[in-house]
Amino acid sequence: MSFTIREAIKEDMSEVLSLIKELAHFEKETEAVEVTVEDLENDGFGKIPLFNCFVAEIDSKIVGMALFYSRYSTWKGPTIHLEDLIVTEKKRGLKIGSALYTKVIEFGYNKGVRRIEWAVLDWNKPAIDFYEKTGARVLRDWDTVHIENEAIENYINSL
Amino acid sequence: MSFTIREAIKEDMSEVLSLIKELAHFEKETEAVEVTVEDLENDGFGKIPLFNCFVAEIDSKIVGMALFYSRYSTWKGPTIHLEDLIVTEKKRGLKIGSALYTKVIEFGYNKGVRRIEWAVLDWNKPAIDFYEKTGARVLRDWDTVHIENEAIENYINSL
Repeated sequence: MSFTIREAIKEDMSEVLSLIKELAHFEKETEAVEVTVEDLENDGFGKIPLFNCFVAEIDSKIVGMALFYSRYSTWKGPTIHLEDLIVTEKKRGLKIGSALYTKVIEFGYNKGVRRIEWAVLDWNKPAIDFYEKTGARVLRDWDTVHIENEAIENYINSL
Repeated sequence: MSFTIREAIKEDMSEVLSLIKELAHFEKETEAVEVTVEDLENDGFGKIPLFNCFVAEIDSKIVGMALFYSRYSTWKGPTIHLEDLIVTEKKRGLKIGSALYTKVIEFGYNKGVRRIEWAVLDWNKPAIDFYEKTGARVLRDWDTVHIENEAIENYINSL
């Protein structure tokens, strides 16, 4: 089955959101997705886009996507952060994920960034094996910290 | 000893870089800092600034800083990422770090973001204890992945 990869347009965001929700389900956090189609349309395609996105298509249907944006490292300067790389479950094994990954690495290479970064669940061994084979390094001694919604408000109110 | 906190200006970047290098040394990665004063000046104070920064001063000398920028979550929408929070070793214990942290949380709260995020070394227990006391959550099952400089180039050349 052959697929094509292209830059996402605003009209893709509904299908992109379906993929985001599919990934959240896989990560056992279905309820965590608060973003709407309108948010993605406004945030990704406004005057200052907050992210870039590639989509993979089979027969004009979106079956995968990679969403990424710029970050800043005080060691490396501007970097790229790959936020989500998703291929719908029924279309796995066709190297679509690998092709999307390559597009993002190429994007970062062409921009001249010294680092491309993302997060992986420590039990997702197939993903980790794939990343390491491409030359990426898993940093096992760094943990991510989040303060969210209510906790932010509670902290502000406690000051 | 009393300190003040203010937004950083371009002229602070030399002192800010000294703090960045001090932190890299603490994290046992002194050689990793490739960024220069000129990079920080251009990247933080150009037409589209790539980061924001607060500095803490005692007697007109910068003794701490918090550097952060916008990110994007496909679950939460726009977020803030706190890249570095540093207080010079000789001025610890004066609650400067805590005051810088509060400024960043306030910044995110005023922007209306649903998440503020950062990374911590898993052996840095005093930092983790502090963050958890403020309502933040350490995500122990997510690992960070990096592909950098040479590895990016090698991957591109292997395609």
